[in-house]
Amino acid sequence: MKKQYTIATLGSHSALTILKGAKDEDFKTLLITTPDRTDFYRRFPFIDEVSQIPSFSQFHEVEKKLKKKNVIIIPHGSFVAYLSLEGNKKMHLPYFGNKNVLDWEFDRSKQHTWMTESGINKAPIYKNADEAEYPVIIKSYGAAGGKGYIFASDKNKLKKKLKTLLGKPYIIQKYIVGVPLYIHYFYSPISNKIEILGVDRRYETNTDALGRIPYQHQRNMDIDLSYVVVANSALTLRESMLMEAFAMGERIVEASQKIIDKKGLFGPFCLEAVITSDQKFHVIEISARIVAGTFLFQNGSPYSWLLYDEPMSMGRRIAREIKIAIKKNKLALITD
Amino acid sequence: MKKQYTIATLGSHSALTILKGAKDEDFKTLLITTPDRTDFYRRFPFIDEVSQIPSFSQFHEVEKKLKKKNVIIIPHGSFVAYLSLEGNKKMHLPYFGNKNVLDWEFDRSKQHTWMTESGINKAPIYKNADEAEYPVIIKSYGAAGGKGYIFASDKNKLKKKLKTLLGKPYIIQKYIVGVPLYIHYFYSPISNKIEILGVDRRYETNTDALGRIPYQHQRNMDIDLSYVVVANSALTLRESMLMEAFAMGERIVEASQKIIDKKGLFGPFCLEAVITSDQKFHVIEISARIVAGTFLFQNGSPYSWLLYDEPMSMGRRIAREIKIAIKKNKLALITD
Amino acid sequence: MKKQYTIATLGSHSALTILKGAKDEDFKTLLITTPDRTDFYRRFPFIDEVSQIPSFSQFHEVEKKLKKKNVIIIPHGSFVAYLSLEGNKKMHLPYFGNKNVLDWEFDRSKQHTWMTESGINKAPIYKNADEAEYPVIIKSYGAAGGKGYIFASDKNKLKKKLKTLLGKPYIIQKYIVGVPLYIHYFYSPISNKIEILGVDRRYETNTDALGRIPYQHQRNMDIDLSYVVVANSALTLRESMLMEAFAMGERIVEASQKIIDKKGLFGPFCLEAVITSDQKFHVIEISARIVAGTFLFQNGSPYSWLLYDEPMSMGRRIAREIKIAIKKNKLALITD
Repeated sequence: MKKQYTIATLGSHSALTILKGAKDEDFKTLLITTPDRTDFYRRFPFIDEVSQIPSFSQFHEVEKKLKKKNVIIIPHGSFVAYLSLEGNKKMHLPYFGNKNVLDWEFDRSKQHTWMTESGINKAPIYKNADEAEYPVIIKSYGAAGGKGYIFASDKNKLKKKLKTLLGKPYIIQKYIVGVPLYIHYFYSPISNKIEILGVDRRYETNTDALGRIPYQHQRNMDIDLSYVVVANSALTLRESMLMEAFAMGERIVEASQKIIDKKGLFGPFCLEAVITSDQKFHVIEISARIVAGTFLFQNGSPYSWLLYDEPMSMGRRIAREIKIAIKKNKLALITD
Repeated sequence: MKKQYTIATLGSHSALTILKGAKDEDFKTLLITTPDRTDFYRRFPFIDEVSQIPSFSQFHEVEKKLKKKNVIIIPHGSFVAYLSLEGNKKMHLPYFGNKNVLDWEFDRSKQHTWMTESGINKAPIYKNADEAEYPVIIKSYGAAGGKGYIFASDKNKLKKKLKTLLGKPYIIQKYIVGVPLYIHYFYSPISNKIEILGVDRRYETNTDALGRIPYQHQRNMDIDLSYVVVANSALTLRESMLMEAFAMGERIVEASQKIIDKKGLFGPFCLEAVITSDQKFHVIEISARIVAGTFLFQNGSPYSWLLYDEPMSMGRRIAREIKIAIKKNKLALITD
Repeated sequence: MKKQYTIATLGSHSALTILKGAKDEDFKTLLITTPDRTDFYRRFPFIDEVSQIPSFSQFHEVEKKLKKKNVIIIPHGSFVAYLSLEGNKKMHLPYFGNKNVLDWEFDRSKQHTWMTESGINKAPIYKNADEAEYPVIIKSYGAAGGKGYIFASDKNKLKKKLKTLLGKPYIIQKYIVGVPLYIHYFYSPISNKIEILGVDRRYETNTDALGRIPYQHQRNMDIDLSYVVVANSALTLRESMLMEAFAMGERIVEASQKIIDKKGLFGPFCLEAVITSDQKFHVIEISARIVAGTFLFQNGSPYSWLLYDEPMSMGRRIAREIKIAIKKNKLALITD
């Protein structure tokens, strides 16, 4: 029966992870993408069908056609960039996730409120340059993959840099001195359980280039600091901190059910934290959907192998949830 | 027959790796932990039973009960911190490992003697601030997971920092400029063979945070350097250096049989080394038990896959050794 | 029928990856090595036979003996260092790869021409110290595993360092500020397809040591910068950059068929790139054979699992290609 459904996504971000996982769970798979990417995605044997659209903004023109195919759409980190917030909400196809969460993820100020409500330890944000403790990071709304993050070490620099944003919305967040780490969660509204399926670290250019250059040369090089993520690597967390990692995930889900709506956040999400030497997490961001770092674990992660006796990527975990929902006739519970 | 045995450990450090591996080898599994951690460990399906104690220091109160269950205890890096050196030695339950090794691991000065006896290349230690070549690292005894390591770049700073230790025992070790790397060994007293089952790198806060901050800002930030390990990542060693890595492990085992006792060191252990650009290892520490970095390899490592045609984590390798010992009626050889 | 063939290589660099993969594909395996390494390689159960030679330069003395065994030689990164360019070319045994590529890989100036012909984005090279934009890296020919790379931040330093090379051939390459990353390709002349089987990052001593030392102390430490690779770690690339990664591999293969010979480059190779914050690759080197970083993926990589439903290391992929060639009677197409 589940074979009647097709799992589909847009050609970018985590599409390979999503569709490989869907195929592992015996779904049909469909990729919607632009002509320039078609040949690339056709390299992968687990993608059954590639549906071309002239540009992602014309996604809605293919919706009707997909409706007939019994498609379930899995969103990822490029959906808002490609379709806009409104475009996501207007989608008529079954959409894995809760669209009401989108506003709370996109609006960094709302996101901060969400963290506050959950009671997790978070990096402070500041209203303006006078109030801030330095250094800080400026993050504009929708800045994806670290693009557009700006480091500022003092008030003058912050003020100068804020002017370059030309009125775009942003937050000013404290720069926490510690090591960054990204925890991949999956919350199942069917089993009411939270799982940790992986932990990664971002590889950022050119921030991760700095440390390899002797300070004597940094001085002459006029390096413009940036945090653009171009790759990810796997980590495992100290076991004594894993309990708190689970608890943080649960608190974020519970808070979402209070402040967003009853359904709240479910499926894959990620908490992005900086850890200080007192072994405390300082959460800097919530990604309320699959993150790119899950690519690392196509064949399972050290965490997934503790829970499953088969390779369980985040893509497969999503497909598994849909499979269970279909079987239990609960598809409405996990789609929007 | 092996099903009559239960493999048990304390709820911390490497408990998940140990018990997952035990379950893979078809043992019953039991976790002894405090009430605050019980719910956390119950998340994992391979833990058959959780035995609560009010605090780890009361471990000996549950010993009698466990005796009846045919329990074999697998120690890890938190055993000394939780039970004390004496507490470990007084344990009546079968204990995987050689308790005489504990003193030689805990006492950093003895550990240095052990390295010297083995003939491996090690980082020098110094008697006092006048004798030292700078920079140095001060390591107090029992400092676990990098906590309490102190960097000192000159004589004055070293003297100042030594005063903060308030008479606690410590060593002063040369700070080697090179890349740190941790080699996971398993020595089997049944087959008399040494295996390398993984290599990792520690992710230390805030030392690994430094390189991401431009030096101009480090200047204004008053960062207090620390080496607390909060995560690990996987490495593979240059093949031409792997021969020396095996040889080092063998020399450490052989030296232990001379200077500690006939049984010497066996089971899992780790050599922690810094590698310089002449491709030499400078060993900085021996961990004479399972290390936290083995968590990375729940489904095997690039090294274990060269030796085994099934996923072989360090936890599973321990359980496998016990299984073989039971079969060969040699349990006395590997327990204390 | 394929069992009649033996896959062989020299005892160094990627020998374990190559022979483990060969065994996974049911070939007989043979290692040719010097007496000091024999015991080491005998630790690995997938090596059927170890053939000793007094020194690698005497390789040609064992060739006749091996001829009878139906051996296919798989070269790796130490072949040129051990046998010389000429020694490789004079080999009579079937050699997996195209020997004409060797000159184009070894001669860094030719390699640069190759990149130029392919149209990929590459780091500029300079004729002399006056022309260069600083900082730069000097790379002598044949410098393997990063040994002998020299960083120079200005004209005077470059001139001083060039003198230390004593007339050895070299190139002066622009130092690109960004994050380095190594892409593992396999091009099959049988299927005419290119595959990406892994991505890694090098762990270099002491360049990767620098960032962990506060700049105040770097100042007093007189660190002589070096790029010697002692280990590797796994990465996954941002999905939106993967299309360009495939395209670069294809362009390098196509260019080789134009400027080297009709057969061109095939089998395993690696493009070594630095990525800048505009998400552009700047290729700094071509390795026209298996690279050491493939060791990471003995049980497959996140990339290989997208293409194969079984663990596919680079060593196994090579053996698979040979297996297919034998079956299709096309061994001449892939050997030289």
